[in-house]
Amino acid sequence: MAATPSVPRSTRNRTRTPTRSWWGWGYTDAHPDDAECAALGALIPGTLARPLPIPRIADLPIAPPAVTPPRSLAHLVTADPRARAAHAMGKAYRDVIRALRARPGRIPDLVAHPTGDREVADLLDWAGTHDVAVIPYGGGSSVVGGVEYRGDAHRAVLSLDLTSMDRVLEIDTASRSAHIQAGALGPVLEEQLRPHGLTLRHFPQSFEFSTLGGWLATRAGGHYATGRTHIDDFVQSLRVIRPAGAGTSWRLPASGAGPSPDRLFLGSEGALGVITEAWMRLQERPRHKASASVAFTDFHQALEAVRALAQSDLAPANCRLLDPGEALLSGASRDGSSVLVLGFESATGPVGDRLASALDLARAHGGRAETPPADCDPSAGTVDRASSVGPADRAPSAGSAVSAWRSAFLRMPYLRDGLARMGAVVETFETAATWDKIPALIDAVRTEVGAAALKITGHPATINCRLTHVYPDGAAPYFTVAVAGRPGAEVEVWDDIKAVAVEVLHRHRATITHHHAVGRDHRTGYDLQRPEPFALALRAAKEALDPHRILNPGVLLD
Amino acid sequence: MAATPSVPRSTRNRTRTPTRSWWGWGYTDAHPDDAECAALGALIPGTLARPLPIPRIADLPIAPPAVTPPRSLAHLVTADPRARAAHAMGKAYRDVIRALRARPGRIPDLVAHPTGDREVADLLDWAGTHDVAVIPYGGGSSVVGGVEYRGDAHRAVLSLDLTSMDRVLEIDTASRSAHIQAGALGPVLEEQLRPHGLTLRHFPQSFEFSTLGGWLATRAGGHYATGRTHIDDFVQSLRVIRPAGAGTSWRLPASGAGPSPDRLFLGSEGALGVITEAWMRLQERPRHKASASVAFTDFHQALEAVRALAQSDLAPANCRLLDPGEALLSGASRDGSSVLVLGFESATGPVGDRLASALDLARAHGGRAETPPADCDPSAGTVDRASSVGPADRAPSAGSAVSAWRSAFLRMPYLRDGLARMGAVVETFETAATWDKIPALIDAVRTEVGAAALKITGHPATINCRLTHVYPDGAAPYFTVAVAGRPGAEVEVWDDIKAVAVEVLHRHRATITHHHAVGRDHRTGYDLQRPEPFALALRAAKEALDPHRILNPGVLLD
Repeated sequence: MAATPSVPRSTRNRTRTPTRSWWGWGYTDAHPDDAECAALGALIPGTLARPLPIPRIADLPIAPPAVTPPRSLAHLVTADPRARAAHAMGKAYRDVIRALRARPGRIPDLVAHPTGDREVADLLDWAGTHDVAVIPYGGGSSVVGGVEYRGDAHRAVLSLDLTSMDRVLEIDTASRSAHIQAGALGPVLEEQLRPHGLTLRHFPQSFEFSTLGGWLATRAGGHYATGRTHIDDFVQSLRVIRPAGAGTSWRLPASGAGPSPDRLFLGSEGALGVITEAWMRLQERPRHKASASVAFTDFHQALEAVRALAQSDLAPANCRLLDPGEALLSGASRDGSSVLVLGFESATGPVGDRLASALDLARAHGGRAETPPADCDPSAGTVDRASSVGPADRAPSAGSAVSAWRSAFLRMPYLRDGLARMGAVVETFETAATWDKIPALIDAVRTEVGAAALKITGHPATINCRLTHVYPDGAAPYFTVAVAGRPGAEVEVWDDIKAVAVEVLHRHRATITHHHAVGRDHRTGYDLQRPEPFALALRAAKEALDPHRILNPGVLLD
Repeated sequence: MAATPSVPRSTRNRTRTPTRSWWGWGYTDAHPDDAECAALGALIPGTLARPLPIPRIADLPIAPPAVTPPRSLAHLVTADPRARAAHAMGKAYRDVIRALRARPGRIPDLVAHPTGDREVADLLDWAGTHDVAVIPYGGGSSVVGGVEYRGDAHRAVLSLDLTSMDRVLEIDTASRSAHIQAGALGPVLEEQLRPHGLTLRHFPQSFEFSTLGGWLATRAGGHYATGRTHIDDFVQSLRVIRPAGAGTSWRLPASGAGPSPDRLFLGSEGALGVITEAWMRLQERPRHKASASVAFTDFHQALEAVRALAQSDLAPANCRLLDPGEALLSGASRDGSSVLVLGFESATGPVGDRLASALDLARAHGGRAETPPADCDPSAGTVDRASSVGPADRAPSAGSAVSAWRSAFLRMPYLRDGLARMGAVVETFETAATWDKIPALIDAVRTEVGAAALKITGHPATINCRLTHVYPDGAAPYFTVAVAGRPGAEVEVWDDIKAVAVEVLHRHRATITHHHAVGRDHRTGYDLQRPEPFALALRAAKEALDPHRILNPGVLLD
C-alpha cells in the first residue's frame, strides 16, 4: 500500500532560483524599491524622508569563527560571511531593523547543512563536547527571536540549517500519510506530494520560507481557519535527535498510551531535540470550493456572526474577519466596513449548500454578503487551473474582497520591510482567548497599545485587528501596529510598545502566542502563563535531554 | 456571559440509589442471576457446571490500616472494610476473577474522600511525609490495573476517591464551556449541563461508572467514532495538584506557547499529579439525528468502506464496524454478515443528506443498507423524547441492528462478569494502527491469539473484532476473547493469552492501547512503544513533580 515517490531530488538545482534576502523577508526581487518605500512611508506621519539604505554584509561585525569543526564534519560546515549573516536572526520587524541599523544579533560562528540523521547526531555530539550552542534553523522565518543566539555563555554558536533534508521519503496512500524530512520548505514538500493527488494543506503566511520542522517545533497555525489548524493535529509520528540519543514515535492514527510523546516535542522550539523527520497526515486535494465575503457595519456584531459560524458544524476552511482598518489596508473594503472572508472546500462533494447556510447565518447577524452562493461552487476545472501549489492553491473563485485579502496577505511582510526602511515601526502580534473575553480584549489592545505607542513615539499609531482562526470556544486575534519610530531607536520603541501589549494580553489571560511561538521575545509572557507543574516538568526534561545545554539556549527556558 | 449553574448539590442524596457492586461491574441489581450465568456459560464449551458464588468481603484478607491519618484529615478518611475492598482494584476481567477467587490485589489501608483542592493538597502532603502511596480514584472502572497498588515499597496505601468533587462550577455559554470538578461521574456531569442545552458528549462504555478526572488522566475515547473523540481534544484548561505545588493552565481555545502543558498531564494516570478541575469544551445538544446499518458479506470489503467513509468529510458521529461474531453477539445480524452501524447528528441542520451520501459510499463497496435514508432524519421531537442523558441519548431512531448493538454495548460488561462466574476467561483489548496495517493486524490477532488460547486452555476460543473509532489515517480495532479457563488459574490463563496479544500488537506497531490506558497491565507493551527521548523526559518530570514517589506508583514508570 505504500508508494515511494518518484519525484527526483532536483528541487535544489532549479534554474533561475530567485535570491533570498539575507536581511529582509523573502526574495530580493520582490522587495519594494526606494520609490515604493517612500510612497509607503508617506502613509505614516513622522517617518523618514528617504529610505534607509539596504544593509551590506561588509558592514557587519563578523569575527572569525571561535571554533573549527573536526575534519569528519568539515564538509557540512561553512564559515562563509553571507551564510553566517543570513543565519544570524529571524524575520521579525526587530530583526529587519537591526539589520538596517547594522545592529544584528550575535552572528553564528558556523553554519552546518547536514544531509541526514547521522550527521545531525555527529554535529550535536561535537557541539556538546566543545561548548557550542546549536540553533536549529529551517526557513529562518521566526518572528520571535527563535533562531538567534543571545548572551555569551557558550564558546561558539552553530546554526544547524536542515534545508538539505527536504525529501518526502515515503507515501502511504492507504493511510493518506507521508514520511517527510523536516527541512522541506512548504513548496518543496507540496511539489513532491502533488503527483499523488495529496497535500499537507498547511499554508502559513510564511509558507514559502518555512519548513516542516519549523512548523512542528513552533506549533505553527495553518490553512484551516476553523477546526484543526495547528500542525500538531496532522502529526502521526516524529523523529527526534538529541545529544547522545534519538527516538521515533510509532505511526499511529490515535493512541491513549500515556501522555502523547509527540506533544512534548511539538512546540519545543529546538530546546529538547532536533526534529528531523515526521509522518504527516495528508488531505486529498479539494475538488469543490466556494467563497464569498460579508461586510458588517458593526465589528462587534461581526464577532457574534463569526462565533455563531464557529459553533455551527459548517466548518469553513477560511473564516477570516478583518476589522475596518485591515479591510481598508487589504483593499477588501473602502467604506469602513468590517469584512468576513469565507471559503469552503471539499474533496468529497459540493460545498455550495454549506456556503449558503453560512451566509444565512451571517445575514442574521447583520452581514451583507458580497457574492451570491450560487456563483461560488467552482467545478474541478477551476481548482485545477491553479498553477502553483501552496497559498495560490487557495485562489478564491469569486469575490474581489476575497481576492484582495489574499494578495495583501502574501505581500504584507514585504511592505513591512519597505516601511522599516522608512523608519516606521511596523509589527504584528497575535493571541487567542475564549469568546467571553474576545470583545473586551480587542478593545483593550486597541486603546491601551494605541495610547502607549502615542506616548512612546509622539505619533498616532494605526492598530488593526483580524481574526485569523476561530474555534467553537474562542478566537485568535491578530494585531498590526504601525507608527513612526525614533530614528536609531526603533528597536527600543517597539520593545516598549510590545511590553504594553504583553501586559494587556496577560491581564486578559490571552495566550502570548497562538502560532508565532515563544522564542526569546515572548519569554516574559510565556513564563507568566506557564503553569508551575509544567514548568518544573519542562525544566527537568531539558536537563535530562540536553545535559550540556547546547540546544537553542534561551528559548522557553533559561 | 458566564452563568453559574443553579443545579442544587443534591445528586448524592437521591432516594433509592442502586447499590454499586464492590467486586463486579456496575449495579448489583443488574447482575445476571445464577440461572442466567449458567445459560451464558453453556455457550462456552468447558466452563463450570455451576457459577462461582458471589464473593464476600468477610472472606477478604483485610488487615488493620498501617497508618492513622492526622486529626485534621481524619474526617475525610475511612478504614471501613467495604470501602477499602471496593477501592482495591478496577473492573478488568482480571479484577473480577481475582475477587471471585478471593485473591484480590493489595487492599488499600485507607480511603479518602476530599471535598476540595485544599484537602487534596493536605492529603498529598501528609502522604509524602509518611511514605503512603496515593492512588487517585474516580469511578474505579480501570481495566488495566490503574487503580490498585502492587508491591510493598510503601508503608501504606491511600485510595484518593475524588467523587465528592463532582460539581459543575461555572458555565460560559458564550464560549460553550464549563468548569467541572474532576470527580463528577458521567451522568452527574451531564445532569448539570442539561438545563443549559449543553453536553460534553463523552460517552465511553463506562459512562455511568467513570469520572471526568478518570477520562482526562487516561485519555479516554468517547462518543464520536470519527474525528475528535479522545477527551484530550475537549480540554480547555486543567488544574493539577502535586505534592507541594499546584497549577492551572489558562483557558484557551488554542495556543502555540511552548509544548502544550495540558497534554503532559492528559494520560499521566495520576503519576504526575492529581487533576482536580478542568474547563471543558461542550457541544450543543443535537437536534437532528439519522442512523442506519449496512451489512457486508466480506469483512475486508467492509474495512475498505469504512476507510472511504473516514477519509470523506461526512463525519458520522457513529461509525462502528462489527465483524460477524460481534454482529451475532449483539444481535445486529444472524447471517454471518459484518455490520456497519452508522449515525449522524447535528445541532446545526438536517443530516439526512450526509447519511445518504455515506450509504451510497458503503453500497459502492458492496454494502447492503438496512434502513433507507429518507426515514432516518428524525425531528427534534424524536431526539427530545430520549428520557435520560448519556448513552441513552444516542438512542437510534431507526434500524433494529443499530438498536441491538447499543443495548448489547451497555450490557456487555455485566455478561462478562456472569461468564467469569462460570469460570470463563472473557476479556477485551483494543489498539489502533494506520490503515496500511489494519487488515493484516486483525488477521494476525485472530489467528495467533486464537491459537495461543487453544494451546493454553485446550478449548477453542471465540475472538471477535469491531472497529470502535476510525480516522482518515487509521482505525481502532477492539477485540473480545472468550474461552473456558482452568479452574483456579483463570488469571494466569488470561495473562498468558494477553502476553501473546501484546506481542502481536508490538510486531505490527499497533499501540498498546487506544483508550483503555496503560496502568500496570500494559507496562510491557508501553515500555516497548515509548520513544527513548520521551521516556527520559517523563522520568525526569516524575522525579521533579513527585519527589517522594507516592503518586500512583507503578503506572507508566517504575
